[in-house]
Amino acid sequence: MGFEYLTNVPLSQAREDYLARLQSHGFGPKTEVIPVFESCGRVTARAVYAHICAPHYAASAMDGVAVNAKDTFGATETTPVTLSPEQFVVLDTGDPIPEDRDAVIMVEDIVKNEDGSITIHAAAAPWQHIRQIGEDVCAGEMILPSHMTVSPAAIGAMIAGGVLEIEVIRKPVVGIIPTGDEIIPPCTDPKPGDILEFNGSIFSAMVRQWGAEAVVYPIVPDKFDQIKAMVAKAASECDMVILNAGSSAGREDFSARVIRELGEVLYHGIAIKPGKPAILGCQGEKVILGVPGYPVSGIIVIEQLLKPLIDHWLTVPAAAAQYAAATLTRPIVSGLKYQEFVRVRMGCVGGRLMASPLSRGSGVVSSFMKADGILEVPQGLEGFEAGAEVNVRLLSSMDKLQNTLVVIGSHDPLLDELADMLHLENPELYMSSSHVGSMGGIMAIRRGEAHAAGCHLLDTADGSYNRSFIRKYFPKGGVRLISCVGRQQGLMVAKGNPLNIQKFSDITGNFVRYVNRQKGSGTRILTDYLCKRENVDTSAIYGYDREELTHTSVAAQIVSSSADAGMGIYSAAKLYDLDFIPICIEEYDLIIPDHAWDTPMVQELLTILKSDGFREKLLSLGGYTVDNPGEVIPV
Amino acid sequence: MGFEYLTNVPLSQAREDYLARLQSHGFGPKTEVIPVFESCGRVTARAVYAHICAPHYAASAMDGVAVNAKDTFGATETTPVTLSPEQFVVLDTGDPIPEDRDAVIMVEDIVKNEDGSITIHAAAAPWQHIRQIGEDVCAGEMILPSHMTVSPAAIGAMIAGGVLEIEVIRKPVVGIIPTGDEIIPPCTDPKPGDILEFNGSIFSAMVRQWGAEAVVYPIVPDKFDQIKAMVAKAASECDMVILNAGSSAGREDFSARVIRELGEVLYHGIAIKPGKPAILGCQGEKVILGVPGYPVSGIIVIEQLLKPLIDHWLTVPAAAAQYAAATLTRPIVSGLKYQEFVRVRMGCVGGRLMASPLSRGSGVVSSFMKADGILEVPQGLEGFEAGAEVNVRLLSSMDKLQNTLVVIGSHDPLLDELADMLHLENPELYMSSSHVGSMGGIMAIRRGEAHAAGCHLLDTADGSYNRSFIRKYFPKGGVRLISCVGRQQGLMVAKGNPLNIQKFSDITGNFVRYVNRQKGSGTRILTDYLCKRENVDTSAIYGYDREELTHTSVAAQIVSSSADAGMGIYSAAKLYDLDFIPICIEEYDLIIPDHAWDTPMVQELLTILKSDGFREKLLSLGGYTVDNPGEVIPV
Repeated sequence: MGFEYLTNVPLSQAREDYLARLQSHGFGPKTEVIPVFESCGRVTARAVYAHICAPHYAASAMDGVAVNAKDTFGATETTPVTLSPEQFVVLDTGDPIPEDRDAVIMVEDIVKNEDGSITIHAAAAPWQHIRQIGEDVCAGEMILPSHMTVSPAAIGAMIAGGVLEIEVIRKPVVGIIPTGDEIIPPCTDPKPGDILEFNGSIFSAMVRQWGAEAVVYPIVPDKFDQIKAMVAKAASECDMVILNAGSSAGREDFSARVIRELGEVLYHGIAIKPGKPAILGCQGEKVILGVPGYPVSGIIVIEQLLKPLIDHWLTVPAAAAQYAAATLTRPIVSGLKYQEFVRVRMGCVGGRLMASPLSRGSGVVSSFMKADGILEVPQGLEGFEAGAEVNVRLLSSMDKLQNTLVVIGSHDPLLDELADMLHLENPELYMSSSHVGSMGGIMAIRRGEAHAAGCHLLDTADGSYNRSFIRKYFPKGGVRLISCVGRQQGLMVAKGNPLNIQKFSDITGNFVRYVNRQKGSGTRILTDYLCKRENVDTSAIYGYDREELTHTSVAAQIVSSSADAGMGIYSAAKLYDLDFIPICIEEYDLIIPDHAWDTPMVQELLTILKSDGFREKLLSLGGYTVDNPGEVIPV
Repeated sequence: MGFEYLTNVPLSQAREDYLARLQSHGFGPKTEVIPVFESCGRVTARAVYAHICAPHYAASAMDGVAVNAKDTFGATETTPVTLSPEQFVVLDTGDPIPEDRDAVIMVEDIVKNEDGSITIHAAAAPWQHIRQIGEDVCAGEMILPSHMTVSPAAIGAMIAGGVLEIEVIRKPVVGIIPTGDEIIPPCTDPKPGDILEFNGSIFSAMVRQWGAEAVVYPIVPDKFDQIKAMVAKAASECDMVILNAGSSAGREDFSARVIRELGEVLYHGIAIKPGKPAILGCQGEKVILGVPGYPVSGIIVIEQLLKPLIDHWLTVPAAAAQYAAATLTRPIVSGLKYQEFVRVRMGCVGGRLMASPLSRGSGVVSSFMKADGILEVPQGLEGFEAGAEVNVRLLSSMDKLQNTLVVIGSHDPLLDELADMLHLENPELYMSSSHVGSMGGIMAIRRGEAHAAGCHLLDTADGSYNRSFIRKYFPKGGVRLISCVGRQQGLMVAKGNPLNIQKFSDITGNFVRYVNRQKGSGTRILTDYLCKRENVDTSAIYGYDREELTHTSVAAQIVSSSADAGMGIYSAAKLYDLDFIPICIEEYDLIIPDHAWDTPMVQELLTILKSDGFREKLLSLGGYTVDNPGEVIPV
């Protein structure tokens, strides 16, 4: 325990120095010869010249007859010329022109006579309707320069030019070595402490997307000699090696030592976050990159440090990253010491592109899956305020962002089902939902950040749901409240209810480990209200401050015995096969701002809410009632 | 011979009806189950739900000690709390939290005492530094909706969620059947009349780029029963079949009959050019598309009619085509009856995007390779005038177009070598050259269509080259003349000079078949001048009107015995191993407009002209002299 990074070198310098060092050892593109018909998308190693002409013979461009043009001179409408069978040769398109002929007359322009001769009413110009030798490609001509990507048509031109094999840039081979005593191959029933090896699958998919080949080596335990032997093997078999260290802090030291004994370490510690423990090493011209164990850190390190090397090897300029200006919905605080890469979810609402920071946990790989863009906070900048105009590197296309229904607010698993139905119904439409609770949803609508918000807010004064909140938070109108579902709320407890919890007030006392929802969520407001109504002192509830963001994550804590009880909806309890003590039925509705009403996304959403498919889906989830989903509720 | 297309149905209607008919027979996406780690880029067939939580156990997020938070309550800087060895468990990042602990204290925040106890100066909040179960993914949660493309991070999230296999849309399999008695497998020494089979390689590369799999069947001769048997076999093995008919007109009838006997023909004849003889057929849900034999027609038919079916099958919206407004450099005349697809070469000159129509011959596959865009002329429109603003579908990226040096003018093989050197020197720069002769180059510069023009124009009054033409055509300046090379011009004749041609005037008389260059080319002007000087009557030269566009294509005609003599440069004669009768040395220079001078492309070009590499290249080509290449010539 205890570890210091040796360097904190800025990313751009690290990249430049790394490439220069590798090049000094001979790093650079290697080539191979492959059949032309397999070369689509590959990059030419050198200029390709035609071996033969295409066409390689003078060919008829029409169905008709080949003649000697001189025999036809003088033919006109009034002075037709008749050619004897010896003077012409019948041929089809593509047929070679006989040696002593130099023009073709189209079949439409000849009159056949009974004696086998033909009559024509116009002279043929020499070489008319003949595809000249080399019309397409001339022997010796350059078909493709060096370092160009081969297109389907270029394959045709090369084969036509008699080129059957081509020297191309070989794809660099990236070897990926997962290490760690706790790392096990993917399975569906890991034991506590086991960590499933999925980085290898992520990294190999990434490098394949960039044009390299990937080899994932077997998992190596945390034994110095075994790791060293595997890295040496990978370096001998591959062009680049990713040594994926475990996630605990001492591991990178271990990796650095392995690399240093096999070759050299240029830098250990880069000024980026996540990813600072990266190790830039090599064994001669072979790249050996030490990558942190957390998947998000690994993804950033590989993208920022390995991809430029692959691009350099492949010699083709990488597709330029697409950037777009967006409004930041929440502040980002960043350390001055590092260049930070913040994953953001994006959406286009009311004509504005919005960017919301996602979880910054390095272990949360799903945050990368959900990310629509990366906000790069430069080294030396403290971050950005909410509302700042920022320049985001796009991971999703603008097309997709403009067709994405942005739902921010209370969580319900049915939102995912709606997302599925929406995209199935219209493949051009997408939905992204963020779980920030009912009040968070109202605020997001007010700030113009969402097309819709899920909401189930109890008015404790009159027992009504949502309507009074709309009146309060949107006094000037501008939004519609759309009926969605009635939901069964209650206490989720372990299967068999071992602590014999019967009513809400049973959650007090140290023997029950409670797991709560975050402040501002409808379920939390309901829980607080129930505490007040039942005269339960919240400080007497153990774990009342332990907050989860969704019904399912509350259920997950209970099913894994890290908590005993929590409020949530029936469908979440059913999903995890938990016992459920019903407390009340609440109204879960959607708030939709007027400006979003006529978007194709909202209109499709309303159609789905009213569909039979939606009712059937709710039935299968359980714990929902439906009245008039999709109808506007008067407020 | 003689053939009528049965229909002339508009493209959009053909597409719509074809899909509807196929769907009525059950056409649509099929699925398969594959390992998740191989699923990158594939499309989910249905929503994917997590089987387990990730993390699947409460894990330490730090190196430190696990404690029961209650034991630490009250600890502050002034009232430290000491924990006995029984009260804490040392653990590393990722280790599971022992059952009766609920918080982690970082190693940096503890003081180790000699008796094995530890002292802390701050209370631990319950669940601090613990990665809660399901923080990344909750069991039962939807990881990916249906019909979404799998990303590398999604692979990680799925494996973390215990999903090891995934149902994805199967790639449709496209079977390609080349037919024709004259079609032979690719080789380097075809006999006259042989046509190399390369359409199969083009089409399979195209459909693979679109996400399908391709199978190319053996070439089938023009025998009805053999073709029918092969189509039946392909339809039983594939989802879609391309029946690639020969290029002569009767062939499509043959194909249509085959398809009709196996299934049905919806349309035979689409209102597009090229591609009108396409046959839209099927056998049940299996697509059978009859495609014309000419490669360019085939490419258009497959792109316009098969790609939409593949897109539909794959369920993901195809990337939207990119369009850009460009100025047309030459007029396009189009038939009213068809929607026409014209291949254009594009370039960005002086801030304007220019589009120049390429050869419209259906057999010229290299024209597709060179095309930067497709100009679609709608049905019912007669075409466009030169200078018209047109909307072009881009095949090259705007990035590439903005970095392409556009050279229009006189042809010389060294231009291709310069293109190669330019791109090798700076992979972001490209060069495209069009061969329109020296006068054509001057006109292109005047119209602002090129960054540079190759030029070798003899002033017959004083024997000088180029300078007087610059003064005449650019009276107000605005261009610079750049010294390039001296070139040996002469008569190219067959190896061994069988006709014993000794001097220029020997080209007269019917026994010599001459092949000329196009009007406006420097070589043609030189030839015309020589005729005048030597008192040669051009009407006495057989083939004087037969025009080729490049030195190499003139040489190609001679080497293949379709002509006996032609004027050209030494390097072209050398390339084809022809005999060469030297006539004169001319100056081949480059005209560069002032507005292009400071572009990176022109500056790189000048650097290369002055380089040793350029001199060495000229030496290897032969027939060139160099003085001060890259220097400005005073005019």
